[in-house]
Amino acid sequence: MKVSIVGVTGYSGLELLRYLRQHPYVEVVSIHSHSMNKKSFEAVNPHLKQLISLPLEEIDPTIIMEKSDLVLLATPSGVSKELALPFIKANFPVIDLSGDFRLKKAGEYESWYGSSAASLELIQQFDYGLAEFRDSPKSKWIANPGCYATATELALAPLLRNNKIELDSIVIDAKSGVSGAGKGVSSATHFSETHDNMTLYKMNSHQHIPEIIQQLQKWDVTLNTIQFSTSLIPVTRGIFLTAYAKLKQPISDEELVQLYKTQFENNHFIRIQEVGHYPTLKQVIGSNYCDIGLAYNPQTNMVTIVTVIDNLGKGAAGQAIQNLNLYAGFEEQCGLDQLPIYP
Amino acid sequence: MKVSIVGVTGYSGLELLRYLRQHPYVEVVSIHSHSMNKKSFEAVNPHLKQLISLPLEEIDPTIIMEKSDLVLLATPSGVSKELALPFIKANFPVIDLSGDFRLKKAGEYESWYGSSAASLELIQQFDYGLAEFRDSPKSKWIANPGCYATATELALAPLLRNNKIELDSIVIDAKSGVSGAGKGVSSATHFSETHDNMTLYKMNSHQHIPEIIQQLQKWDVTLNTIQFSTSLIPVTRGIFLTAYAKLKQPISDEELVQLYKTQFENNHFIRIQEVGHYPTLKQVIGSNYCDIGLAYNPQTNMVTIVTVIDNLGKGAAGQAIQNLNLYAGFEEQCGLDQLPIYP
Amino acid sequence: MKVSIVGVTGYSGLELLRYLRQHPYVEVVSIHSHSMNKKSFEAVNPHLKQLISLPLEEIDPTIIMEKSDLVLLATPSGVSKELALPFIKANFPVIDLSGDFRLKKAGEYESWYGSSAASLELIQQFDYGLAEFRDSPKSKWIANPGCYATATELALAPLLRNNKIELDSIVIDAKSGVSGAGKGVSSATHFSETHDNMTLYKMNSHQHIPEIIQQLQKWDVTLNTIQFSTSLIPVTRGIFLTAYAKLKQPISDEELVQLYKTQFENNHFIRIQEVGHYPTLKQVIGSNYCDIGLAYNPQTNMVTIVTVIDNLGKGAAGQAIQNLNLYAGFEEQCGLDQLPIYP
Amino acid sequence: MKVSIVGVTGYSGLELLRYLRQHPYVEVVSIHSHSMNKKSFEAVNPHLKQLISLPLEEIDPTIIMEKSDLVLLATPSGVSKELALPFIKANFPVIDLSGDFRLKKAGEYESWYGSSAASLELIQQFDYGLAEFRDSPKSKWIANPGCYATATELALAPLLRNNKIELDSIVIDAKSGVSGAGKGVSSATHFSETHDNMTLYKMNSHQHIPEIIQQLQKWDVTLNTIQFSTSLIPVTRGIFLTAYAKLKQPISDEELVQLYKTQFENNHFIRIQEVGHYPTLKQVIGSNYCDIGLAYNPQTNMVTIVTVIDNLGKGAAGQAIQNLNLYAGFEEQCGLDQLPIYP
Repeated sequence: MKVSIVGVTGYSGLELLRYLRQHPYVEVVSIHSHSMNKKSFEAVNPHLKQLISLPLEEIDPTIIMEKSDLVLLATPSGVSKELALPFIKANFPVIDLSGDFRLKKAGEYESWYGSSAASLELIQQFDYGLAEFRDSPKSKWIANPGCYATATELALAPLLRNNKIELDSIVIDAKSGVSGAGKGVSSATHFSETHDNMTLYKMNSHQHIPEIIQQLQKWDVTLNTIQFSTSLIPVTRGIFLTAYAKLKQPISDEELVQLYKTQFENNHFIRIQEVGHYPTLKQVIGSNYCDIGLAYNPQTNMVTIVTVIDNLGKGAAGQAIQNLNLYAGFEEQCGLDQLPIYP
Repeated sequence: MKVSIVGVTGYSGLELLRYLRQHPYVEVVSIHSHSMNKKSFEAVNPHLKQLISLPLEEIDPTIIMEKSDLVLLATPSGVSKELALPFIKANFPVIDLSGDFRLKKAGEYESWYGSSAASLELIQQFDYGLAEFRDSPKSKWIANPGCYATATELALAPLLRNNKIELDSIVIDAKSGVSGAGKGVSSATHFSETHDNMTLYKMNSHQHIPEIIQQLQKWDVTLNTIQFSTSLIPVTRGIFLTAYAKLKQPISDEELVQLYKTQFENNHFIRIQEVGHYPTLKQVIGSNYCDIGLAYNPQTNMVTIVTVIDNLGKGAAGQAIQNLNLYAGFEEQCGLDQLPIYP
Repeated sequence: MKVSIVGVTGYSGLELLRYLRQHPYVEVVSIHSHSMNKKSFEAVNPHLKQLISLPLEEIDPTIIMEKSDLVLLATPSGVSKELALPFIKANFPVIDLSGDFRLKKAGEYESWYGSSAASLELIQQFDYGLAEFRDSPKSKWIANPGCYATATELALAPLLRNNKIELDSIVIDAKSGVSGAGKGVSSATHFSETHDNMTLYKMNSHQHIPEIIQQLQKWDVTLNTIQFSTSLIPVTRGIFLTAYAKLKQPISDEELVQLYKTQFENNHFIRIQEVGHYPTLKQVIGSNYCDIGLAYNPQTNMVTIVTVIDNLGKGAAGQAIQNLNLYAGFEEQCGLDQLPIYP
Repeated sequence: MKVSIVGVTGYSGLELLRYLRQHPYVEVVSIHSHSMNKKSFEAVNPHLKQLISLPLEEIDPTIIMEKSDLVLLATPSGVSKELALPFIKANFPVIDLSGDFRLKKAGEYESWYGSSAASLELIQQFDYGLAEFRDSPKSKWIANPGCYATATELALAPLLRNNKIELDSIVIDAKSGVSGAGKGVSSATHFSETHDNMTLYKMNSHQHIPEIIQQLQKWDVTLNTIQFSTSLIPVTRGIFLTAYAKLKQPISDEELVQLYKTQFENNHFIRIQEVGHYPTLKQVIGSNYCDIGLAYNPQTNMVTIVTVIDNLGKGAAGQAIQNLNLYAGFEEQCGLDQLPIYP
């Protein structure tokens, strides 16, 4: 299978390149960017020196469709919605990593992203790519989920699907590494400001909120909203998400862990921690794993769910390749079989 | 006023030394440790080279009481409960930074700290040193609060005292820098394991929980428990605490901020952020400030409270000096008037 | 004594504010910037909230000279050379932290800074502010040294002044924290690029080189050049400098340490480490200390000199205040008497 | 090819596991440790959860030799010298990552490692495994080089082999990430002491020095010694090495770069940077690459060589696998074909 990567110069694009190098059945045949030329690409990414023989090309859909069987759009929200059009029109497979094709309800994109959405008709044709819970795994148009959304949805799925929690009690306290903010410089990602620091940003207003609610409603239509905070921690990669919810009925830690194990028993990339163990952020870095730890507190009747992912792995490029594998009928682990990098 | 510091070789003891150097009315007349001698003290703390002319002495209460007017015990929980006895017996002022004299209910120390408590009669004579809410600010025996406890209690005080929240909805997600674990080495604080990592530890079992509940019950006797998580983030200093609670009545952000400003209007060290602003961890490092940011979410009817302190400042040594100032009748800022170190 | 700070919004300006708050004889009467107004100043520097009652003013030399006895220019190279003019013309004291008044040889500023210099006549009137080796400590115009320059010059002074080393063998390998690059954002200081990384920049071309050579030539006029590298390490503050030089004659470690102790015996801020001890970066952070460790290698006949400073302390604001104290006849430690912040 | 890993629980052992998972021709058939059992292995290494089906076994040479074709000893210096004996006696292939079989001169191990060496006769049978310069690439006993040694030797090879430098002018200023100190806890690797810090340790006394001199003497027998410093920087992985040397004759930057390109033109894992470019540490992390940047300074007649490796990659496990490939006749890149992990 031949694929092209558009937006290869961003962190997610680079990570696609890293994973796909190990993929037994996929060949990256072209890489594209409109922000850099080949020379600056190597200058800015010296880790790739001598390793990428492909030229860095302009984004020309016609040529991409001639060369490839599928295009991965690792472009920012706002850019993908334009770039994807010629591919869709030509009935050509697209996996889009941006937020542009995720929100299926009219007006939501506009209110959370602050700009005009792609046509709702197009958006409806995209399947939301939460790999463990795909509606149409064979869809040729896939809207890869956001990093926070992936971690949140996987954290809550077993409880919601089994009707275990008081919906209005859900609290998500999510922390992200700085690479989640991308390559663009700003004072919020300036080393001297970010190092040794922690900051809560986008209070009750992160653009992944509507995407999360949309997915959670598939599991419990009566859910309306969630309490959701996002903070920046001084690590490069990773999302560490702590979720809290009140249970309808008490549960034992053993039952709780079993509930999750059962839900995910056929999902290679979800690793449920044993009773009394909670995942650390580093145990998934460089990989597509989502590790989940669980505890029930009988005092408060609340469950605590600790979920960790690599924001560039399961939170972006890794899941995109997992979705590519689903689409193409490859084994789920193809290209994603590396061990996490530790320490 | 002359004071002695016992346990000066730990991080809190060193921080007492740093603040007291600036104190206009307090002189440190002796420093004590049973784990080091003078030579190893300078070798382990090269930042103090040529700056501390005092010898490092053994811990001899008789000599301390001859030299000093007050003793600061910066010793670990389990050690203070023995060390404090001769001072109390001699009616000599003690500020204790450990957990040994905080829990006033029989059996609690034993169940949370896993060892036998000091005599309950003695503990009752200690005033809990949450500086902004002291019961007996002139008490000569002060149990300085825990770092997590300080941040939590200050975060919730205005809401609880004004009967604003649903008690069973409180969720505290607290993150701490690694210096909170002290100087003792362990794999949990080994650089290669801790750097670029985040870990949730002591799930529903941190020993500050009973101390928090004890204080919160002073403000609402019907409160029984809280949901409370503690995580380690890869910074040396600081606690970043995010608290969530459902309100009994909707509130505007302006009213919420005003509620906190009113509560703390005479408290120099509590800085309430304006509407739409949330404190970053770094803005209090090296200082005794506790900065609080607030937001109401009408969708969930929840308030989010972001509280930051330096765990060695307001969370330990800084508050101890603030309590010393209260006891001695000095101005609250004496010795604590430095600007936070930034960046 | 009344002073004004111009460029207070940069890292060095903020650090001047932090130190001067503790100064017993100096009052900051006005603060100035042309890049921010008061509101943005507090928004960008939340650590100062409620702590600075002064308004942030435009830069008006006439008003500054009415209010103050001395002006501190914490402005970038290229800006100071214009700003200083009206003060100099009016015979008003100036301490300039930029590189604009350091290079006294025609053409050097132009070739190392890449823009036109201030008039050489003016530059000649500035005394180079290496505090331990001032030519004219009472000069009212002081060119405060660069951070790398300070560390290098103090590292080499005793050896050069005593004619101990082969001049053409000197190698300086200097590492700096990221705050040395200032507040301006760039991909070189973007957290995701800088964290967990180390980079050598300005190979043989750092603008502090001519300033260093100029000072070293005062001690040995036959010195022509040095080998000098600058790298960025992932810490916010600090310079860690390792210098190497061949000796003309073998020496013992004891004699070597004694040579340095003798040179600096009256210099409070220079702390010579004992034989076999080398300073760590953290032991000077937040302070004006310069700590130096020494070792002679009989195998190679080379001496290794390890020098650490806080780039914003002894490398900028701290030394500026030390120079202010010299000018005003205050004790050298005034305002600089804090312990380093540790850990 | 079947291999066993002894000492799999250390950082180098874990990294062998990570690389070999991608190796097309090598299967890890058993893993061994005497410090942990299977249960604690997964508890301490949660990143491996569900990914390693092998049991963690005791170290039994007889069983290992039955199962495997080669054993990798990722055990500490002092341990390997005992463990290797039965394998050597049985003429069984060994790649040892410790320092125990590197030093071929009588007495050197004793004086640098402070304990008794393996028998010199045995040591002589080991080939020093600097992969690009192997004496006997088909040797079945390989002493894998130290991390600092690898970086130093590769940095200097072209200059020494071409007789370009004044031997007594060489200065090596090497900086290492903290994982180089291994998993053992100590105050030198305690997060609160190491973070935001930099320290020079083992002044003129690092145990890699004799190994380096031994190798350099193969290229220039008249070399006697080098000036060599080792510092700890606050990153987990990586060695950033800056070397300086005076040239016998001036050279242009172009000629210098060409000299290195020519030397390493057939060495996939050595990437010579273009004129004016210097490698950053991160560009090799997670990989077996050694990247080298070069500059000639006509003022000082010195060359600066910047060399970066991952201490666990080219500095340990990566190079061990490269050596395994050489031994087995596999392509050099087998198992080592991943892109560096970036950012």
